[in-house]
Amino acid sequence: MALNQNFRIGRKALLLLLNEEDKKQHERLADAGWCYCTGKVGSMEAHKVVAAVETAAKNNQIINKELYREGHALYHAIIEALQGVTRGQVQIGSVLRTVGLSFSVVRGSPYENSAEGEWIAVSLYGTIGAPVKGAEHETIGLGINHI
Amino acid sequence: MALNQNFRIGRKALLLLLNEEDKKQHERLADAGWCYCTGKVGSMEAHKVVAAVETAAKNNQIINKELYREGHALYHAIIEALQGVTRGQVQIGSVLRTVGLSFSVVRGSPYENSAEGEWIAVSLYGTIGAPVKGAEHETIGLGINHI
Amino acid sequence: MALNQNFRIGRKALLLLLNEEDKKQHERLADAGWCYCTGKVGSMEAHKVVAAVETAAKNNQIINKELYREGHALYHAIIEALQGVTRGQVQIGSVLRTVGLSFSVVRGSPYENSAEGEWIAVSLYGTIGAPVKGAEHETIGLGINHI
Amino acid sequence: MALNQNFRIGRKALLLLLNEEDKKQHERLADAGWCYCTGKVGSMEAHKVVAAVETAAKNNQIINKELYREGHALYHAIIEALQGVTRGQVQIGSVLRTVGLSFSVVRGSPYENSAEGEWIAVSLYGTIGAPVKGAEHETIGLGINHI
Amino acid sequence: MALNQNFRIGRKALLLLLNEEDKKQHERLADAGWCYCTGKVGSMEAHKVVAAVETAAKNNQIINKELYREGHALYHAIIEALQGVTRGQVQIGSVLRTVGLSFSVVRGSPYENSAEGEWIAVSLYGTIGAPVKGAEHETIGLGINHI
Amino acid sequence: MALNQNFRIGRKALLLLLNEEDKKQHERLADAGWCYCTGKVGSMEAHKVVAAVETAAKNNQIINKELYREGHALYHAIIEALQGVTRGQVQIGSVLRTVGLSFSVVRGSPYENSAEGEWIAVSLYGTIGAPVKGAEHETIGLGINHI
Repeated sequence: MALNQNFRIGRKALLLLLNEEDKKQHERLADAGWCYCTGKVGSMEAHKVVAAVETAAKNNQIINKELYREGHALYHAIIEALQGVTRGQVQIGSVLRTVGLSFSVVRGSPYENSAEGEWIAVSLYGTIGAPVKGAEHETIGLGINHI
Repeated sequence: MALNQNFRIGRKALLLLLNEEDKKQHERLADAGWCYCTGKVGSMEAHKVVAAVETAAKNNQIINKELYREGHALYHAIIEALQGVTRGQVQIGSVLRTVGLSFSVVRGSPYENSAEGEWIAVSLYGTIGAPVKGAEHETIGLGINHI
Repeated sequence: MALNQNFRIGRKALLLLLNEEDKKQHERLADAGWCYCTGKVGSMEAHKVVAAVETAAKNNQIINKELYREGHALYHAIIEALQGVTRGQVQIGSVLRTVGLSFSVVRGSPYENSAEGEWIAVSLYGTIGAPVKGAEHETIGLGINHI
Repeated sequence: MALNQNFRIGRKALLLLLNEEDKKQHERLADAGWCYCTGKVGSMEAHKVVAAVETAAKNNQIINKELYREGHALYHAIIEALQGVTRGQVQIGSVLRTVGLSFSVVRGSPYENSAEGEWIAVSLYGTIGAPVKGAEHETIGLGINHI
Repeated sequence: MALNQNFRIGRKALLLLLNEEDKKQHERLADAGWCYCTGKVGSMEAHKVVAAVETAAKNNQIINKELYREGHALYHAIIEALQGVTRGQVQIGSVLRTVGLSFSVVRGSPYENSAEGEWIAVSLYGTIGAPVKGAEHETIGLGINHI
Repeated sequence: MALNQNFRIGRKALLLLLNEEDKKQHERLADAGWCYCTGKVGSMEAHKVVAAVETAAKNNQIINKELYREGHALYHAIIEALQGVTRGQVQIGSVLRTVGLSFSVVRGSPYENSAEGEWIAVSLYGTIGAPVKGAEHETIGLGINHI
């Protein structure tokens, strides 16, 4: 039942919208002075997904772990991204499913007016499905917040 | 308050996950014999987003408009994608916000085992925000269903 | 695409659980001194379903229209029944679907201990689907409250 | 506080809608060539309800356990049925309540047009309440999906 | 059916938590012949918050622990109050957050028409946040039901 | 990161609505250099509640109407407060109910560590019920966000 890596339907659907050569993504973010990190997490517990993203963001200095306002901004971005992933209730194992996700956290200034300040984006992409190998399809989520 | 098109934070976050040159997306889908369509819709009413995606999918023969089972598969994929976009309640203007979305619908066979048959993916990407120009941030959603 | 009236799958599934000859339903309820009413409502607006059930319950003296506490008990039973019908968000036309429902409201004392007093049950059964004839499947909901 | 088995208010409300002699349910389903199964599950954990229905459906060959597309169809039907049972959040013990449910799974072709193919219905009926004997009322749920 | 402006049950329940220095709150409730209790609970599990409030209400004879209809009224008031506290999904630790709450339960007759009978209000006030000391902000919830 | 117990922003926002006779609320907020406003709104449409609070906050210079980041912070605080008011789905007239609300918006620095910066609290208090005079009970909501 495994997904054919050359025909991941969700990924293709997304790239139809996002069509851009990705080779220079890292350079562009670095050039812009933005900070970001990526990681992976697989779990049947939503709180472990939250913790994995929070830990990566803190360890990579995307947010200042001493400031609650930054943790608060990140937390809500993660929960919003999880709503895209879970589509209905932010529950994973408690409704007998599991996720295998890659995630990214990006912090930067996306608005032309510099007074709009910094924002944070959390993106999750991977698979969701039954706790049986291959019995899964793709899923994505994105949460954005001012920081 | 307009988004700087060179620094769309959500798009960059997504491409960190999706990093792939997109130039050949259309060719690849055609080569695989998959069918797909894209479109745009801006609205304060969720039902208009649903209708726009349904109409495009029918007019481009992505689904057979004579079969309810295909419409049913598509409908649930759209609602799931809208949950990623709206993150909490599938409401737009009724909670005083608006969306400007691009969408894609892809139909194909993403599993190695051909017995898994065809699946449909609906992706939405664009902005959500107040009904004031520029007072918006990016949003994404993905819904996948067997068909 | 019309449903074959002899093979309503949801109704059959329900009757597997409820298996009982129905001929004497009305007599039994009357014998027990319970009051009840039935009706039908088709709409794309959830508030019209609520209003149809409330109006029927008041006009048939199932609840006392002068007492808010009875209206409050009935209202929450209706909303709970609608959650079974809508499965996710209590929205109909705003997510481009329509319902055609039969409903019943029953008031009585279902517990052995008479001190448990009266309760009210609202049941909804019918179809939900696209605003296209036949593009629909069955749906059911049940809400129960003390009154 | 036990429910009086002769006056189950929700069941009566449902039968007002479903009024039909049930004696021949099993024969009719068999005559139609439909497959179905029934079972029972009591739990404070939603994932155990999901698992009980999935296991029964697989063991009785209602779905092909080798095909994810069939498991996917069944899973969403179960979750939709659970939304009718839980009415708000698909949570049981995590909000201090428990369920005792009978369930049925039916697979067949309910539309006149044979091109509409097979559909699956999951029905849940029983009680929900506090984890105290008798402190409970009836609940029902129905989920239907194309398969 | 009008609310008696001097006996707004929700406001009284809230002020029991918020207006610590208001010496006359307790006297006023006692003078009116209303019964009430207060308590505290900190947890990462929603069911423990439910249990703490239920136990306090029973031990202080706010509700009759022998009657399910009273427990049912209280349960729904608690869950409604928790929705104000959690704002989206009635989950705490499962989405990696914790609460520290004071609660009050008030039972009385808030309507001018005595036929409206008794009602129950549950109020929760405290903090919600990450499981890190100080990484939290305030939260409130109020649930009201007829009893 | 600890909250300053003398400057709990949510409590202050709530007491502005509940403690009408407390003459010193306004003085205390002014002494602290915090800004705030209050208002009233009655509607069957959620977006009108959002608009009333947003307009009051902008007209009273609680937020800078030129900055989306401030509007974004306020918007999410309003929606969170509405979740306490509506308890389940952020819908009013669409499920046949109406609200009559007072609201307050408070902006200040509630944490002992000044680096935590400014936060915004939105509080709603009033009645919710059927569109029939007197058929209503109290309701409250509080949303807090960093700004």
